[in-house]
Amino acid sequence: MNDPSQQRSLVTVGEVLAVLAAPDVGPLTLGSGLRLGLAGAESNVAAAVSRLGGSATWIGRVSDDALGDLILRELRAEGVTTVAVRDAAPTSLLLRERRTATHSRTRYYRTHTAGSRLSIEDIPEDLVAGAAVLHITGITPALGEGPSLAVTRAVDIAVDAGVPVSLDINYRSLLWSEADARRTLLPLLRRSDLVFAGPHEARLAVPGAEEPEALAKAICELGPTGAVIKLGVEGAYALLDGQELRQPAVPVTVHDTVGAGDAFAAGYLAELLAGEPPERRLRTAVLLGAFAVSTTGDWEGLPRRHELDLLDHHDDIVR
Amino acid sequence: MNDPSQQRSLVTVGEVLAVLAAPDVGPLTLGSGLRLGLAGAESNVAAAVSRLGGSATWIGRVSDDALGDLILRELRAEGVTTVAVRDAAPTSLLLRERRTATHSRTRYYRTHTAGSRLSIEDIPEDLVAGAAVLHITGITPALGEGPSLAVTRAVDIAVDAGVPVSLDINYRSLLWSEADARRTLLPLLRRSDLVFAGPHEARLAVPGAEEPEALAKAICELGPTGAVIKLGVEGAYALLDGQELRQPAVPVTVHDTVGAGDAFAAGYLAELLAGEPPERRLRTAVLLGAFAVSTTGDWEGLPRRHELDLLDHHDDIVR
Amino acid sequence: MNDPSQQRSLVTVGEVLAVLAAPDVGPLTLGSGLRLGLAGAESNVAAAVSRLGGSATWIGRVSDDALGDLILRELRAEGVTTVAVRDAAPTSLLLRERRTATHSRTRYYRTHTAGSRLSIEDIPEDLVAGAAVLHITGITPALGEGPSLAVTRAVDIAVDAGVPVSLDINYRSLLWSEADARRTLLPLLRRSDLVFAGPHEARLAVPGAEEPEALAKAICELGPTGAVIKLGVEGAYALLDGQELRQPAVPVTVHDTVGAGDAFAAGYLAELLAGEPPERRLRTAVLLGAFAVSTTGDWEGLPRRHELDLLDHHDDIVR
Amino acid sequence: MNDPSQQRSLVTVGEVLAVLAAPDVGPLTLGSGLRLGLAGAESNVAAAVSRLGGSATWIGRVSDDALGDLILRELRAEGVTTVAVRDAAPTSLLLRERRTATHSRTRYYRTHTAGSRLSIEDIPEDLVAGAAVLHITGITPALGEGPSLAVTRAVDIAVDAGVPVSLDINYRSLLWSEADARRTLLPLLRRSDLVFAGPHEARLAVPGAEEPEALAKAICELGPTGAVIKLGVEGAYALLDGQELRQPAVPVTVHDTVGAGDAFAAGYLAELLAGEPPERRLRTAVLLGAFAVSTTGDWEGLPRRHELDLLDHHDDIVR
Amino acid sequence: MNDPSQQRSLVTVGEVLAVLAAPDVGPLTLGSGLRLGLAGAESNVAAAVSRLGGSATWIGRVSDDALGDLILRELRAEGVTTVAVRDAAPTSLLLRERRTATHSRTRYYRTHTAGSRLSIEDIPEDLVAGAAVLHITGITPALGEGPSLAVTRAVDIAVDAGVPVSLDINYRSLLWSEADARRTLLPLLRRSDLVFAGPHEARLAVPGAEEPEALAKAICELGPTGAVIKLGVEGAYALLDGQELRQPAVPVTVHDTVGAGDAFAAGYLAELLAGEPPERRLRTAVLLGAFAVSTTGDWEGLPRRHELDLLDHHDDIVR
Amino acid sequence: MNDPSQQRSLVTVGEVLAVLAAPDVGPLTLGSGLRLGLAGAESNVAAAVSRLGGSATWIGRVSDDALGDLILRELRAEGVTTVAVRDAAPTSLLLRERRTATHSRTRYYRTHTAGSRLSIEDIPEDLVAGAAVLHITGITPALGEGPSLAVTRAVDIAVDAGVPVSLDINYRSLLWSEADARRTLLPLLRRSDLVFAGPHEARLAVPGAEEPEALAKAICELGPTGAVIKLGVEGAYALLDGQELRQPAVPVTVHDTVGAGDAFAAGYLAELLAGEPPERRLRTAVLLGAFAVSTTGDWEGLPRRHELDLLDHHDDIVR
Repeated sequence: MNDPSQQRSLVTVGEVLAVLAAPDVGPLTLGSGLRLGLAGAESNVAAAVSRLGGSATWIGRVSDDALGDLILRELRAEGVTTVAVRDAAPTSLLLRERRTATHSRTRYYRTHTAGSRLSIEDIPEDLVAGAAVLHITGITPALGEGPSLAVTRAVDIAVDAGVPVSLDINYRSLLWSEADARRTLLPLLRRSDLVFAGPHEARLAVPGAEEPEALAKAICELGPTGAVIKLGVEGAYALLDGQELRQPAVPVTVHDTVGAGDAFAAGYLAELLAGEPPERRLRTAVLLGAFAVSTTGDWEGLPRRHELDLLDHHDDIVR
Repeated sequence: MNDPSQQRSLVTVGEVLAVLAAPDVGPLTLGSGLRLGLAGAESNVAAAVSRLGGSATWIGRVSDDALGDLILRELRAEGVTTVAVRDAAPTSLLLRERRTATHSRTRYYRTHTAGSRLSIEDIPEDLVAGAAVLHITGITPALGEGPSLAVTRAVDIAVDAGVPVSLDINYRSLLWSEADARRTLLPLLRRSDLVFAGPHEARLAVPGAEEPEALAKAICELGPTGAVIKLGVEGAYALLDGQELRQPAVPVTVHDTVGAGDAFAAGYLAELLAGEPPERRLRTAVLLGAFAVSTTGDWEGLPRRHELDLLDHHDDIVR
Repeated sequence: MNDPSQQRSLVTVGEVLAVLAAPDVGPLTLGSGLRLGLAGAESNVAAAVSRLGGSATWIGRVSDDALGDLILRELRAEGVTTVAVRDAAPTSLLLRERRTATHSRTRYYRTHTAGSRLSIEDIPEDLVAGAAVLHITGITPALGEGPSLAVTRAVDIAVDAGVPVSLDINYRSLLWSEADARRTLLPLLRRSDLVFAGPHEARLAVPGAEEPEALAKAICELGPTGAVIKLGVEGAYALLDGQELRQPAVPVTVHDTVGAGDAFAAGYLAELLAGEPPERRLRTAVLLGAFAVSTTGDWEGLPRRHELDLLDHHDDIVR
Repeated sequence: MNDPSQQRSLVTVGEVLAVLAAPDVGPLTLGSGLRLGLAGAESNVAAAVSRLGGSATWIGRVSDDALGDLILRELRAEGVTTVAVRDAAPTSLLLRERRTATHSRTRYYRTHTAGSRLSIEDIPEDLVAGAAVLHITGITPALGEGPSLAVTRAVDIAVDAGVPVSLDINYRSLLWSEADARRTLLPLLRRSDLVFAGPHEARLAVPGAEEPEALAKAICELGPTGAVIKLGVEGAYALLDGQELRQPAVPVTVHDTVGAGDAFAAGYLAELLAGEPPERRLRTAVLLGAFAVSTTGDWEGLPRRHELDLLDHHDDIVR
Repeated sequence: MNDPSQQRSLVTVGEVLAVLAAPDVGPLTLGSGLRLGLAGAESNVAAAVSRLGGSATWIGRVSDDALGDLILRELRAEGVTTVAVRDAAPTSLLLRERRTATHSRTRYYRTHTAGSRLSIEDIPEDLVAGAAVLHITGITPALGEGPSLAVTRAVDIAVDAGVPVSLDINYRSLLWSEADARRTLLPLLRRSDLVFAGPHEARLAVPGAEEPEALAKAICELGPTGAVIKLGVEGAYALLDGQELRQPAVPVTVHDTVGAGDAFAAGYLAELLAGEPPERRLRTAVLLGAFAVSTTGDWEGLPRRHELDLLDHHDDIVR
Repeated sequence: MNDPSQQRSLVTVGEVLAVLAAPDVGPLTLGSGLRLGLAGAESNVAAAVSRLGGSATWIGRVSDDALGDLILRELRAEGVTTVAVRDAAPTSLLLRERRTATHSRTRYYRTHTAGSRLSIEDIPEDLVAGAAVLHITGITPALGEGPSLAVTRAVDIAVDAGVPVSLDINYRSLLWSEADARRTLLPLLRRSDLVFAGPHEARLAVPGAEEPEALAKAICELGPTGAVIKLGVEGAYALLDGQELRQPAVPVTVHDTVGAGDAFAAGYLAELLAGEPPERRLRTAVLLGAFAVSTTGDWEGLPRRHELDLLDHHDDIVR
């Protein structure tokens, strides 16, 4: 395998949160054990790309304490290059309750934290300009003016340098309204080359359309040359340079749905970096989604490249 | 929200057991970790009603040691008023083995214990006479002569004071024979206003009938003005003041079926206390059943009122 | 035993935090399991007093989510009356790392939280004026202007109503400087009747003195009629209405030192409420300190009254 | 019940491994908790037969350390007679990763270990010659020349003494190639009386056939008088003394598929030892398979005889 | 090593309880995880003797359910021969709370249980008459008239057959008064050959004496030819056939004191069975006591013979 | 802080094992939970140096499976540069039993494993020649001829390039005899600049001497200019360029002694890399030893530079 450190890198900008997740089903109100880990839409993608053999770089702000060390330690463990400003503010938290067997609830501690203090100065021009692809999500701009400007700055650099921009809309209703999201994300979307969205997220950008085909078409009319619509158990639909592609989902037993969207985007982008054709990109995207839902956590169960086979055929494992 | 302490209360009489439940699947014979908690058909109902904003009072006997303290501490935590005689006898135990993924086995330590020494003197007349509803189950009379007389005494007071009586048949084959149960429960049923039963339990009271409609009708012919037949995945059927009602179940992933019957009764009774119409009572009853089976434990996963929505629609939660 | 709900109550004002405590020794940087619980200097005292049979009331602000429910649920479980304004802001967090076998580290999430939004309107005049004793600590005034004014308001009411005021200095260097603490706490101390302090905390109030005797004397010259100096493994020294008292510590194996100071104050105050003489108050104070250090957690291991004997003699427990 | 120690015994020859199994889903690469237990195709069968009331004896080599003691301790606990040569070499290990919710991965430490040093001298002639049945699997011959000769020696003794031989093909691709397996196992199969195989394993022995009926027929043409084809969720097909038998599977929720094959063989053999007719043997075989997949572990969840009922009817267990 | 099954056996009569032990320090009142295991003074001795290579047999009554199976399974695992009448009554329970770091509390469920229904018919004459030694404790006679008569019957058989009788006084204040214990145990003691006691227990039998030397002398004047006084951290004193022996304790870090007395007796008796001289018996006795207190549980951490060295020298283990 | 990636690096050569450690006290024979981690004398030093801000590189062979990935992932997480040949052989294992509270036992699976196949070709000349220091231990040469030659090759390169060589004798009796160790290690020691040893290890190299002073002197007479004698609770003695240094230990509560020696060497070497004077090197060495024994695991609890203060003063932490 090539040395990822010599490849041009997927670069992404965002926030990593410390995750406090209840392993057992039941209300937090009764007290609980929790597991401390980390997650973030952009770092999830970076880690997943790295596991598939791609080079990945994450830019962000990180608290100057044990939780900040935890974040950098784990990204390093995953082979992700980190460009992190340390900040005296604390790390954002995500408290995840498994209220019932199928319904989780989330409480964020995400204001006045290190990640939300990301600023325009934190974006290293050379690094973005030298990227293989810049991947951004709709979450970082929702964190405040600083992060929003920082993402815009990264897109400015990428567009100027001819670096393709990938945008996962990733709408989070706990962070902002649909109207605010549309106002902020549309300018970014117009300048992106590739857009990932679920049907609901896509409609937020292109309100008129309904079906995947229409949504992707409407998105591409705004500027991007590619739009990939994530359809969950229906798989995915993509419109890439005018070409339509459909990919059914990989049937798996659902264990934990968290992180499926990030895994999907990462699967696509890792193959893009590897120079693979669109069919393969989409196939790996749904495969990574399958890994995400059949393992625990946001990114922890995602595959290394040689593990892709594990879900790529469907033999029983009775012995 | 109104202050529950100012409302007239659901009053219930029964026994709370300490539960020793194996969290993992496998035979106890190999040793095991166990979780110490508490449960009881009547206290389950009281806690569930309290979570839904109703006032609830539990009457019973409790050991004068750490397990007795545990019981009172947790009922207090749930906002249930406790009227408890402390007793030198130990707390009853329920040892629960998850023998296979779907089959649990129970061993009781329930003789010569505090709860089974409940007596007629333990029932405070004023409290029962001032209740909004008296809720009893077929379990307490099965514990011995003292508890049986105590329940009868409570019904006497309620009937005299015009307090409606609710009876959940709750037949337990480990405690007594069907013949003994019928002999003891029929007089109580005749004086009840509302009866909850599964089809098998209903047939125990009204042996001739088969279908929910016939069972409810036969029960109401014995005295009660309402009969609610719990039908599991089929939902519920009710005959209330001659009016028929049908409520389909809420489809959920089954996680742990323990406590579904108590949750159902509590959902119904909480809405009765809140002055809601029968349709709403039955809807909340099946919703609480759905919470019970999609969370762990006897009552621990039941919802507060604002949480009812969680299972009241069926969106996917993929993100 | 008397019914605590009929007694005049110890009233206290403060914040309860959700505690996320690592059960195992090691850096959080490597990830960890955590236990979710709750703690707060004032609520620790209220719970401990309640366990010893006293009536205790806690006034504060609590988030309107699962963690807020957790706080109210547990205080209710401990028999503490809660007077709580619900607030949309989140619950403060305390992340506790056991960095080595003997050194813990704490990170607070305590700004812009429900507890820090406590305000003067949250203090019910009747309740404070009717208290047996008002207990405050130096922590609440450190949380911001609102909490500081709220505490001052409570002291105003108490002093006007002739309710004795107890102050535990409880200096926290993570919350404010010594200079700020002195400026804010001295006026409260002057109007208090009883003061608890460690030697270092006492010196903060009365900078010239060194030894327990001199510190207590200097404190009493400022207004209070009682000063209790906590001396850790040396026990305690008290100057009460001019009378000197010394109490050696109860020798125990130290398991977890967290919560010893609150336990000490609670032991003293519970006996004060019970009308016990000073010697007994001080004896119970050191006994509760002994329970705190020989059990896990902030308050969880503190004794009910009948359990005091457990550490009151020192037999071996070999069998 | 008869005293198993007075019955003629099922005798089996093999290796027991220490199992290090991850209880949670996720890659071992992130570190993990593991549970230490034991397993081995032949000892699984012996333990299962013993639980059903049969007499069972296991012959093998065991390390002279704590893991060897663990193996002998647990087999003794299960009532299995052990004839074990202690060996300075370590116990073989089986590291089991639950890579996804449905896909496990196994790494063996199985070379230069005690079990693989089994030799022809370790087989006590009297014991095998006095057996009720000799049960062997295709695993032991795959461990090396010593174990292969030892198994052959056991078959020699059995055939000479008129003891029926049972062979479970149990092909393991991690241990040897299909060609090697065929070459070694065919001579053993020809001299066996009864053969257990899945369709794929059967084809390894009789390459031409496809369907269960043809596979069983082809096997019996090689020598055995009985062939039982395990069909997973389809149940089983058997050709016994020219008689065809079909047994549907017992429908259960699949919890953990490990050990289903060994359980199946054990169910059949236990009833053979008990003198039960073929229909009953096959019924118990699929019942044991059902227990294996609806409990955790290789053999831990298998039933005692009085527990067979638990899965033998299909009532719901809602209460 | 000789085959223990060919040796004459230590025979003991008693009850085995299921133990539910809290692994963590804190009040059970807050709920808890518990570990399910087993213990009993007599079976602890039998298991410990078996680990040291001696033959050991346990006689008792055992419930006919999963807990009874657990007891027989574990004793079998330890190589103890069990002569057990199965009984429909449940297994006795022992609930163990670690109330503080150094103080445990126990609640028994020990009435109307299988073990307490032991009767005179349960004692097989041949087995006792053929024993190497009969070991009894003061616990079994405290369980009721049946067990008391059964123990007396065993002593009758032993004395008639010339089998030496060993008695560990093992006074349990939760089971009976000192007066009752003295009345019942004195006749047994007079007919015993060897008595184990702590100083307090010895005084119960021979009230006048104070010091170990006087206690042992007084005991031997009642009949026994040997008296061993257990002195905890002071080691042990023995008077054996008029010969005095003193053995200092093995200094260890105390981890869990439960089971030290049983371990001590077992160490002595195992060496007696092995024909070792008194000095060696006493040395192994204190060594086993050291193992008991430096490991978890009642008997689980006791050594096999080759492990005795582990605590028999005191090198540091820094590496 | 400087960028470690730009510094000259401590380079070390060795094996990393997967560690399977029992978290609880007791015999593995009863089954157990285990924690999967990693350790190795040389990688422990590299990780510890990296935490203190130094640059560290580890050279070795690593299995081509999940355990090999685990090793590389964690070293990367710790900021250690890895130069690893992947090998089809499995990772060595270390099974660690906490037999009593103070005595651990270890079983290795260390033959025919990836680490033991280290060969002379695996040592990159440029990397060693460019090191700030080459650190080796007496463990790698004990693993076989390949590793022994590889270490010698590394020393050859270092000596030729003028890179100082540090040797920690680290004698392991489970791996080889004292005579073999002496024969192999003496030539390496003669060419080293700095030697770490406990008194017993030092005597292995220089058999005549007894006291730390004499041992260090005798070692330096063989070639090295520095000898550091580790004295456990007595601290350390060093002879450096003829200069004597003594450093008392930091008094701490001992939690787990594993890894203290490696931590000590790492503390010394990190300060050497940072250009600190000998007194500071020795002070940091004993501080790291103190961290090792007051936290869990081989290296997991070691400090980052800013954490050194935590044990560098001894205030109580009562609050």
